[in-house]
Amino acid sequence: MTEEHLSSFHPPLPPTTEDLLVSWLRLLRSRRVGVTTFFRLIKEHGTAEAALQALPDVARAAGVQSYAVCPEGVVHAELKAGRAAGATLVRYGTPEYPQALSDIPDPPPLFWAIGDLALVHRPMVALVGARNASSLGTRMARTLARELAEEGFAVVSGLARGVDTAAHHAALEGGTIAVQAGGVDVLYPAENADLAHQIGQKGLRLSEQPMGLQPMARHFPRRNRIISGLAQAVVVVEAAAKSGSLITARNALDQGRDVLAVPGHPFDARASGCNMLIRDGATLVRSARDVIEALARPQAPELPLVPPAVPPAPERSLRDVAALHSEILSRIGPSPVAEDQLIRDLKTPAKAVAPILVDMEMNGLIERQAGGLLARSTAAK
Amino acid sequence: MTEEHLSSFHPPLPPTTEDLLVSWLRLLRSRRVGVTTFFRLIKEHGTAEAALQALPDVARAAGVQSYAVCPEGVVHAELKAGRAAGATLVRYGTPEYPQALSDIPDPPPLFWAIGDLALVHRPMVALVGARNASSLGTRMARTLARELAEEGFAVVSGLARGVDTAAHHAALEGGTIAVQAGGVDVLYPAENADLAHQIGQKGLRLSEQPMGLQPMARHFPRRNRIISGLAQAVVVVEAAAKSGSLITARNALDQGRDVLAVPGHPFDARASGCNMLIRDGATLVRSARDVIEALARPQAPELPLVPPAVPPAPERSLRDVAALHSEILSRIGPSPVAEDQLIRDLKTPAKAVAPILVDMEMNGLIERQAGGLLARSTAAK
Repeated sequence: MTEEHLSSFHPPLPPTTEDLLVSWLRLLRSRRVGVTTFFRLIKEHGTAEAALQALPDVARAAGVQSYAVCPEGVVHAELKAGRAAGATLVRYGTPEYPQALSDIPDPPPLFWAIGDLALVHRPMVALVGARNASSLGTRMARTLARELAEEGFAVVSGLARGVDTAAHHAALEGGTIAVQAGGVDVLYPAENADLAHQIGQKGLRLSEQPMGLQPMARHFPRRNRIISGLAQAVVVVEAAAKSGSLITARNALDQGRDVLAVPGHPFDARASGCNMLIRDGATLVRSARDVIEALARPQAPELPLVPPAVPPAPERSLRDVAALHSEILSRIGPSPVAEDQLIRDLKTPAKAVAPILVDMEMNGLIERQAGGLLARSTAAK
Repeated sequence: MTEEHLSSFHPPLPPTTEDLLVSWLRLLRSRRVGVTTFFRLIKEHGTAEAALQALPDVARAAGVQSYAVCPEGVVHAELKAGRAAGATLVRYGTPEYPQALSDIPDPPPLFWAIGDLALVHRPMVALVGARNASSLGTRMARTLARELAEEGFAVVSGLARGVDTAAHHAALEGGTIAVQAGGVDVLYPAENADLAHQIGQKGLRLSEQPMGLQPMARHFPRRNRIISGLAQAVVVVEAAAKSGSLITARNALDQGRDVLAVPGHPFDARASGCNMLIRDGATLVRSARDVIEALARPQAPELPLVPPAVPPAPERSLRDVAALHSEILSRIGPSPVAEDQLIRDLKTPAKAVAPILVDMEMNGLIERQAGGLLARSTAAK
């Protein structure tokens, strides 16, 4: 099996040799190549190797003169660091890769894992919530996590303070998965280093980021899509209005995941996000039993899973492209917009817009965020 | 206009003279004549006067030998007591009668009122909840009641401790209605006598019970159907599982009323009833704004309002009747059953069962409860 078998109707085959793996990792770690661009480039060029060769030209065509792909040495260093940390590099398309995660629109092509990889084949429930959780919130996280783990669910969370910490602790023996925003070997926050070690021994830690990466603010929304992507359902245990947990919940809905929430009294501001979710249709959770019942309900029929379409680039005049370019920039203001909404607003066929968005992402002008959102770049990658 | 105009498709015309009123009140106050039986007898016999004349025979046919209708003197005493208390007797079918209340299956034919009767023509919202409410619960009741009254709603409640008291107090200036389980002149509980006086001056108190009646346990469910019957929506502010407020909520649903509930943390037992209601589809309430929004939503189409059908009594053999009698008694166990369910279970046409149920009610064997429920009698009336 080689990558030549790729057709436009099948996802890329996973790398089966060390060389192919190195090419995947180099492509993924190259500047401004996000997950969507990664899969698009592989489709357009047949293999990661071919994509790597084409990348400087693609960048030049997008106006970036001095583009260089990720050096092979960097990738070898990452692979070495991974081995040293006892981590496994899990590849999209292999049996080790979690099925649910491969169904989201932007699955990580590769992720590092430390611990018991069998956990990703259990049914998974994500518990998310406030870092500054109340004592009610952390107690509820503990109770839910322990009971869900006892019922055979792996409890997924983000290793943060508050709700995450309580959930991981309570599910440590039963089965818990921590999805990290930085490198899988970077134990963040420091106060959870001990918990992280224990999860590596009894549960599972994973991250799509390079070994050694210190997590920054922009890594957390990307990480959160993996938390909800792994799970059948996301339970928001405690969340204020406008909190990050609500963004996770919204993205989870976009991924077709069940969203559930623990209510609180309206005078308790720390419950306001959860109450808002329930008003908007999230299932009210009082106990693990409520979660399990919700999962047992017949689901809405799944949307057909179409791999991201990569149409052949249509002939476009330079003038058209320039016009689209500046219109796109004018439409992406300070707050991110959804890609599909942008394309509708542009009144231009998606297949004409898509390659321009790739150019602009390569160019560092725009960034893809979780949930199909596009934003003006805030930092060069 | 006289009562002779009654047809089987129109509700009885209200009494327009003192004599007719006395007949209505005598019929209503006669032993074992509940609301349903009251309307049925008037339909069957044309007028209250005729029904009163027929009543001893009806009772005898049901096996009650020594039945006597309510003496005229008792009714005159009640009317005199009402006048002395400054109360008005509001008659079903008059413009003073609240429209919403006349639409429930068992509207009181008459009720006593003290205070500002114009309040019943405002949009009304009921606030109900625990007598042993938490401080969060009473604070929420106050906030909701004050804000709803400011928005022009009359706030309906039951003058009980806890949530009721807080709601009435907060809506005293804006507009509040207390529905009492005992006589409208009986200030119960005693600690709320002062509040009750104030409601009589600035708001409205009402009761379908005779003047002077001390409320007993069985009067409260009957009273609760009036609270929800008056209101467009019932907001459960705080309620434990298996509390009376939940029964009120369920009956409110049967009456086609919106049911809303204030959530609480699942570890707070006093919120468990509210959380259960929300799981079952009640609208989650965080503020008066949420209540008003819910009321502004388009309603489900109303069920066609069919006046209780009073078919001509079919010919039945004594043996049939006796068999039905004992089967009905065997099916009404310690917990009440719904009349329509009972009729389905009996596999006997409703028009054959209905007159037997009247007999049995007259006979004191069964009792009608709010929400169309039938129960074995616990007390002779």
